[in-house]
Amino acid sequence: MNGFSCAALEMPIGVKLCRGKGSLAGIMQPMSRQYDYPDSPLYRLRHSAAHLLAQAVLELYPDAKLGVGPPIDNGFYYDFDFSQPLREEDLQKIEQKMHEIAQRELDIVRLETSREEAEKLIRDIGQVPYKIELLHAIPEGETISFYKQGDFIDLCRGPHVANTREIKHFKLLSLAGAYWRGDERNKMLTRIYGTAFFSQEELEDYLHKLEEAKRRDHRKLGRELGLFLISPEVGSGLPMLLPKGATVRRVLEEFILQEELKAGYQHVRTPEIANLNLYRTSGHYPYYKDSMYPPMVFEDGEELILRPMNCPHHFLIYKSEPRSYRDLPLRIAELGTVYRYEKSGELSGLIRVRCFTINDAHVFLRPEQIKAEVQHNIELINTVYKRLNLTDFWYRLSLRDPADKEKYYDDDQMWETAESALRQALDELGLEYHAVRGEAAFYGPKLDVEVRDCLGREWTVSTVQLDFLMAHRFDLEYTGEDGKPHRPVIIHRAPIGSFERMMGFLIEHYAGAFPLWLAPVQVAVLPIADRHHEYGAQVRARLAEAGFRVELDARRETLGYRIRYHQTHKTPYMLIVGDKEAEGGLVAVRSREMGDLGQMPLDALLERLRAELG
Amino acid sequence: MNGFSCAALEMPIGVKLCRGKGSLAGIMQPMSRQYDYPDSPLYRLRHSAAHLLAQAVLELYPDAKLGVGPPIDNGFYYDFDFSQPLREEDLQKIEQKMHEIAQRELDIVRLETSREEAEKLIRDIGQVPYKIELLHAIPEGETISFYKQGDFIDLCRGPHVANTREIKHFKLLSLAGAYWRGDERNKMLTRIYGTAFFSQEELEDYLHKLEEAKRRDHRKLGRELGLFLISPEVGSGLPMLLPKGATVRRVLEEFILQEELKAGYQHVRTPEIANLNLYRTSGHYPYYKDSMYPPMVFEDGEELILRPMNCPHHFLIYKSEPRSYRDLPLRIAELGTVYRYEKSGELSGLIRVRCFTINDAHVFLRPEQIKAEVQHNIELINTVYKRLNLTDFWYRLSLRDPADKEKYYDDDQMWETAESALRQALDELGLEYHAVRGEAAFYGPKLDVEVRDCLGREWTVSTVQLDFLMAHRFDLEYTGEDGKPHRPVIIHRAPIGSFERMMGFLIEHYAGAFPLWLAPVQVAVLPIADRHHEYGAQVRARLAEAGFRVELDARRETLGYRIRYHQTHKTPYMLIVGDKEAEGGLVAVRSREMGDLGQMPLDALLERLRAELG
Repeated sequence: MNGFSCAALEMPIGVKLCRGKGSLAGIMQPMSRQYDYPDSPLYRLRHSAAHLLAQAVLELYPDAKLGVGPPIDNGFYYDFDFSQPLREEDLQKIEQKMHEIAQRELDIVRLETSREEAEKLIRDIGQVPYKIELLHAIPEGETISFYKQGDFIDLCRGPHVANTREIKHFKLLSLAGAYWRGDERNKMLTRIYGTAFFSQEELEDYLHKLEEAKRRDHRKLGRELGLFLISPEVGSGLPMLLPKGATVRRVLEEFILQEELKAGYQHVRTPEIANLNLYRTSGHYPYYKDSMYPPMVFEDGEELILRPMNCPHHFLIYKSEPRSYRDLPLRIAELGTVYRYEKSGELSGLIRVRCFTINDAHVFLRPEQIKAEVQHNIELINTVYKRLNLTDFWYRLSLRDPADKEKYYDDDQMWETAESALRQALDELGLEYHAVRGEAAFYGPKLDVEVRDCLGREWTVSTVQLDFLMAHRFDLEYTGEDGKPHRPVIIHRAPIGSFERMMGFLIEHYAGAFPLWLAPVQVAVLPIADRHHEYGAQVRARLAEAGFRVELDARRETLGYRIRYHQTHKTPYMLIVGDKEAEGGLVAVRSREMGDLGQMPLDALLERLRAELG
Repeated sequence: MNGFSCAALEMPIGVKLCRGKGSLAGIMQPMSRQYDYPDSPLYRLRHSAAHLLAQAVLELYPDAKLGVGPPIDNGFYYDFDFSQPLREEDLQKIEQKMHEIAQRELDIVRLETSREEAEKLIRDIGQVPYKIELLHAIPEGETISFYKQGDFIDLCRGPHVANTREIKHFKLLSLAGAYWRGDERNKMLTRIYGTAFFSQEELEDYLHKLEEAKRRDHRKLGRELGLFLISPEVGSGLPMLLPKGATVRRVLEEFILQEELKAGYQHVRTPEIANLNLYRTSGHYPYYKDSMYPPMVFEDGEELILRPMNCPHHFLIYKSEPRSYRDLPLRIAELGTVYRYEKSGELSGLIRVRCFTINDAHVFLRPEQIKAEVQHNIELINTVYKRLNLTDFWYRLSLRDPADKEKYYDDDQMWETAESALRQALDELGLEYHAVRGEAAFYGPKLDVEVRDCLGREWTVSTVQLDFLMAHRFDLEYTGEDGKPHRPVIIHRAPIGSFERMMGFLIEHYAGAFPLWLAPVQVAVLPIADRHHEYGAQVRARLAEAGFRVELDARRETLGYRIRYHQTHKTPYMLIVGDKEAEGGLVAVRSREMGDLGQMPLDALLERLRAELG
């Protein structure tokens, strides 16, 4: 039961889409709280780099106490208890010391000891209290080992590289506070983050990506470009879209809406709240209570709740009329807002939020329509990606593990029909995909699309999920050709996923320089002097009439200031107008991508803009 | 304080707009629970008609017991306790008996008695227990009176007409159950509704309007036309827009959005929830707790609440940047959804709901900009009404009562500036308006627009409200020309009001026959036989490409059935295509308004449709 509910809460996307796999936060997170990491050469190197860091710190700050120092996904860290605060500037000195020690070419040697010897050794080297605590946490019966290089010795289960000379290409990155053992009731230690690679090239590539990721951070750009605002007075994880951000969102919504209408979807609008019983019927409440908002109880006993998904509303719409096999596939779509209570530590800009809008739809179909409908979905996904200029993506097909009957909805024939229809859909379209056994949801197999952004980070964007179960739970039927009632199969799908997350992704992918069709301000008109305002206003009016989002920037600032402003704000086109332009009906054009394009007649510019919109 | 809060909760429209003044429900409601009605000739006539009804009932059902029988806004009713159930068919017999008694030309005579005599009289005529209870409810010291006509006598304070012959033009309308004294713990009585007028013409006009109102009832049409659905599984007062209703809503939203962008509004998107403290700052919580949804309290102590208004979110956006006098007027707009917990007895279709979306905006301005900004608002209202073809409306200007200082925000100069700016704005535009002293909100004067629908019912649709207070509460400032901080004046305005209510209004006003631009399906293509499907599909595709909302109705039903279907569904145009049309590239056109228009080339039809859209 629990297994089902778990999957089913993932169903309407959100949580799944919000893992923030590709975000900078992801880069900096430890793999696991149990320090359970893969034994690969790179992890070994990074683990040894962490020891090297600890050794350097102890040579520079002999009274520092060591916490833990694991390798992580993109590097390593070590936690220290310093007797005085460390500053960012100190990192360079520590890094130099690390290089110096590495060049001593010390062998890294493993020692195994008894518990008693271990405790004595730790006390001898003065590494109380943290290492003693770690020692006591090692389960009885497990081997106790230390690693030693020169004078430095550390309780550690390894493995490590053989000699410090192997640790050449590394860099210390940042300082952070970290509670001992992650528990806020404990002392706050100082965590030093770093990374290490096998070659200088890899290291530099990584550092470059890190810089790029910082430069592209949608939270930073969101502020600089006036896209959105998160205010503690409204609440954490509840972004407000400022006029420019709201414009991007609207253009994106209008685009997908029109594509979906063309593709035969029927858009509906349903309230963001519902009676709690609806989620009892779906099976989510109370199992997923913790990630739902608390119910609101009214005087008359009614219990309403902010919806964590749009599905049940759409099921009721399906059910509001008798449906025949001739009506299927029936595609109910909505730009539907849902609410999930994420922990405050997990919130991040637009990427992890507590309220988001899904480009959602539920398709009700007959089992024999699965293949065609999945292809219809893939076609829409391709249309979306083409428009967004996303070219680097792959399909992940999540299937059930037939051996694990407990974990999946029990209908072998349905699973076989559905999984082979999904494979056929992909094969016929000649798409490469990666099939993963045992990753299906309880209620059916699914297809996700993983998109790599310009930094190579992967984001799960689109999803197509089959569902054999909810039609039973909500007693949904259609009359078949045989005149008898049948259960429809349901597809949950979202090519864009959550608009919030997609906007976060696009801001980072484009580094804030939205393509012309999405740019909140497409064209800025800059009169050189006061006497050119009138002509500037005419130019603005012509462009606005032609349907462009255009601003007249006639602020009392120098032209240079205003040009720099629109460069910083990544406006795709600036039109500078002075005497010559006014006389000749011209505009002097500066393109964000191509620089100065010189003067051209206004009509020629309009033609150029239209061509760029496609 | 309470006075302010009361007004301020009205501020963001909703409650005010939702009075449902013009709805059928309004027509049928008693004026007041205290039977306190105006003493006008019409009320007197109706009161006497109620007595006539009671007399007729007692002649036909001698053991019936009388409850109360007041005149109401559109007629009268009388509550009875029958020993056996009454059926709708019985009304005619009662009505006949009423006419018969009226023609007896009985004088209607007032008798005054002591309390003791009254009680004896009631017991003598067998009118226990209800009349006895009513007698006991009359406060000590008040005159006790009966009215008598022929054998019939009733405890009543009057007044009445002089003779039953005056009661000629009446009609019994309906039956309903009503708890004695409106208390559900009491016995359910049978209420008979009727109406009466001074002339047959007025009566017929009213009955016609009543029929029309029933025919136009948006709840009935909403179901028949597939516009919306209210499901108890989601909740009362929480309508779901079906595909066709969602289309009307979207077209309406897109229209106002584009008009507002043109008019210099900046649209934002903010979450529908916020920290409860935001409404403590605004002053609404806890004073208006009862009409707000209950707060949601989270584990970490955070208290979020569904917003009852959009204002505070917009104030935070204003506040997120330093503002200069050069930035004003600054117009922050949103299609913003709000939540008010209306009592379940007061809910009605789309007109009174628990969650609605306002075409909201907050304009921040300098006091000297009030007149121009109000005119700018009136211009937008006119654009909206012109598009919606609303021609019968008037302005109500609500001013403060200068004598009643307690009730209004204390800044005489601001009130004078604002009120005279409002008057000037209206005068300069040559608009007629009705100024009402003492109807302003606590925080400033306002302007409402009252629209009369095709049945003459009045709906408050648009509003423009000035606010001197909130800028203080939220500490909003701009830097003036003098370099010093100043408080902006705020205008709350909504030309469309709530979209839900506007849709309810439009459904009733147009009787479901939306004008072409708003119609969910603009054109239906009907192939005569199977062999015409292909041509029908081509016609559909051409129209869709040209941007029309078009459906191919190739269902396996007779042409006659499909034509009737689209007539019932009020599709503006049907295109019937058969052999001749397919050969000649023609369509046979049936217009909803003008009937059969004969054959025409598809291009000619497109031109006609474009012209109609304007």
